[in-house]
Amino acid sequence: MPTSRLAFDEFEEHYATRLESLRRSAVRDLFAAISRPGVIGLSGGMPDISSLPLDEVAECAKRAILDEGLKALQYGGSDGRVEMRQTVCDLVSDFDINVDPDEVFITAGSQQALDFIGRVFINPGDHIIVEGPSYLGALQAFSAYEPTFEVVELDEEGMRMDLLEAKLAELGRGVAKFIYTIPNFQNPAGVTMSLERRKRLLELSHEWDVPVIEDDPYGRLRFEGEPVPCMRSMDDSVIYLGTVSKTLAPGLRIAWMITPKPLIAKLNLCLQGAGLCVSAYNQVFCEHYFHDVDWRSVLDKTVVKYRERRDAMIAALEEFFPPEAKWTHPEGGFFLWIELPPYFDTEQMLATALESGVAYVPGTNCYPDGRGRSAMRVNFSYETPENIREAIHRLADAIDERMELYRAMLSAGVLAENPLEG
Amino acid sequence: MPTSRLAFDEFEEHYATRLESLRRSAVRDLFAAISRPGVIGLSGGMPDISSLPLDEVAECAKRAILDEGLKALQYGGSDGRVEMRQTVCDLVSDFDINVDPDEVFITAGSQQALDFIGRVFINPGDHIIVEGPSYLGALQAFSAYEPTFEVVELDEEGMRMDLLEAKLAELGRGVAKFIYTIPNFQNPAGVTMSLERRKRLLELSHEWDVPVIEDDPYGRLRFEGEPVPCMRSMDDSVIYLGTVSKTLAPGLRIAWMITPKPLIAKLNLCLQGAGLCVSAYNQVFCEHYFHDVDWRSVLDKTVVKYRERRDAMIAALEEFFPPEAKWTHPEGGFFLWIELPPYFDTEQMLATALESGVAYVPGTNCYPDGRGRSAMRVNFSYETPENIREAIHRLADAIDERMELYRAMLSAGVLAENPLEG
Repeated sequence: MPTSRLAFDEFEEHYATRLESLRRSAVRDLFAAISRPGVIGLSGGMPDISSLPLDEVAECAKRAILDEGLKALQYGGSDGRVEMRQTVCDLVSDFDINVDPDEVFITAGSQQALDFIGRVFINPGDHIIVEGPSYLGALQAFSAYEPTFEVVELDEEGMRMDLLEAKLAELGRGVAKFIYTIPNFQNPAGVTMSLERRKRLLELSHEWDVPVIEDDPYGRLRFEGEPVPCMRSMDDSVIYLGTVSKTLAPGLRIAWMITPKPLIAKLNLCLQGAGLCVSAYNQVFCEHYFHDVDWRSVLDKTVVKYRERRDAMIAALEEFFPPEAKWTHPEGGFFLWIELPPYFDTEQMLATALESGVAYVPGTNCYPDGRGRSAMRVNFSYETPENIREAIHRLADAIDERMELYRAMLSAGVLAENPLEG
Repeated sequence: MPTSRLAFDEFEEHYATRLESLRRSAVRDLFAAISRPGVIGLSGGMPDISSLPLDEVAECAKRAILDEGLKALQYGGSDGRVEMRQTVCDLVSDFDINVDPDEVFITAGSQQALDFIGRVFINPGDHIIVEGPSYLGALQAFSAYEPTFEVVELDEEGMRMDLLEAKLAELGRGVAKFIYTIPNFQNPAGVTMSLERRKRLLELSHEWDVPVIEDDPYGRLRFEGEPVPCMRSMDDSVIYLGTVSKTLAPGLRIAWMITPKPLIAKLNLCLQGAGLCVSAYNQVFCEHYFHDVDWRSVLDKTVVKYRERRDAMIAALEEFFPPEAKWTHPEGGFFLWIELPPYFDTEQMLATALESGVAYVPGTNCYPDGRGRSAMRVNFSYETPENIREAIHRLADAIDERMELYRAMLSAGVLAENPLEG
């Protein structure tokens, strides 16, 4: 009876309790809605890869097999091909990170790296420190290991060091397992941590014996202002994450961690359990791309597009959004963060927005603790400037509608001054 | 001070306790030794992919990009491309498994599927049932979730149903989280479960409310005898695992699970946490291979090689091994399992074997509980018949040497009759 089977989960009684702590991805849930015709997707985190020279990329794909032969198709070592690790060393030397291939660990995408970090460090209940807001994929990956999240708020200069210091002092030396930060064009906030704060973060890390994880997917996507040095370039004990998803393509699932060597041995243990090895073929493919193709020019073209799109988004926000709303001004990356007045619930508003043809990420998905209710993450990397303008216009209409309703209810005496506080 | 850094692990105090239960892969540890010139590797599990038509495969790699364009390089959905899932449906219809794409879940290799199974089902301490011996990669993957392993011994007809029934009765209804089995050409034992036992296993699964996981990487690699129906073809509640690693190439890391739909939703949750999505490009690559290339002829050629190699191994065992040794007679797959007299310790003997230029997997790696000390797994899929003969010869010499030593010690009165029992 196929229909009755659909409703009934025969394994219901067998699932592990950790499933209860896994967060459902709002972004994923929205994918179905986004791909509906007419919906402009500001909710995803997809790069624009339309500047890729497909003929050249296809040649890389082919040469990866013809040049490397069966080695590209066989099992590889669990810490990645030495050639790929050398390619990573060459890439990160642009950021003054000088490492050997044996300090590089290749993963099947950054999300796998985050999973391994959770697996290596987190016992259930352990304290870990994340920025508020933080990357929802990281919150998900860590959630599977059931940590206690400690949220340190950020502002326009990144994670607030006064709050971090207070938190570390509250927890005590060596208690928190790590501090997770996205210093460049943060996901979701779009802000960049200042040099002064980076230095202070490193000091605090040593003073309180808590490792720093520097996640840097967007570092090359600066379209304004001066680069700020990576923390890994200043301190060898930082665990640094990078990926090809934003410089070549996400569809290859190749990323890396740069870590002190003893941790590489632990990661190898995890990878043996979790995936045996990362696709050798995809590594050879990437090696070819970064060697054979003028990838910097390709990226330059893409970054120009991202700047146009950010400009289009900020112009539209200024034109259409109510004065009560605030947003960040990213100098690079994919996202900006919008704060609406505290009586807004962006999760509730999402249905209306989708009906009018816009998708975004409600802010609660970027906090582990229910905060972010009146905020939202919007993406500017994927849609055209025209679509972005139209989407922000539609979103502004949805917001105006709610504000009018709120004012009407307020004047009718149905609500207290502020329903969240009152 | 780079030298002092090497010895000191600054994160030592921060690691999660689950690392203690992760098993180090003996196979991996041996990789360095195997790749030394002169060592014949019977320890790995690598397919022979030398029959692959590299030009045609390279064309698939290229066409995957040119035909599918940017979609092949972008993020994909977390349960895999519908085209790849349809390809899987077509492939498994050969085994009378008739499913829709929404019952298929794509993973980055079978090892990731095993990791997800552990993640979805196992709380620390939960009972899971595995064959004795079992696949070391599965034991590793499950170990990360800290289960209590229940080992049910197998014989030439696969897992013993009398022992399984006794174990299920001992544990009680619904207690064990799942029964993990490799029914075809089992890794490491090489045996195939009889039809009668498969049917009995399904009955027991329902009677005692314990799901069955049927791992079938080698199902197409039969070189003798008649195929036995898959359990999934007889019962929709079976969770069935397959992979392209043995029919195309391991370097692409593409595998699948066929499961009842409610479990797919749980797996999606895990994948979102652990990897976001499987490489879209590799899926397109595989779709092209199974569509454009005459892969059945390629596989037929490969299977002929495997038969020759198994024959060479059995002939060499008969010629060189002492009468006290016993081995299985696989009708397909990659491995056979050798049992030596109980006073042998194959872990101890490995150093001698490596010195004489042979690598194998000590049997203890194929049990979660220290059993298998006098057994070993040997692989016949990767080396030439000549190398296999030479390796078995060398191994026999190492065994003879130990036996002589043992007899000498016995006659000198140094040892009791059986040092393990006495």
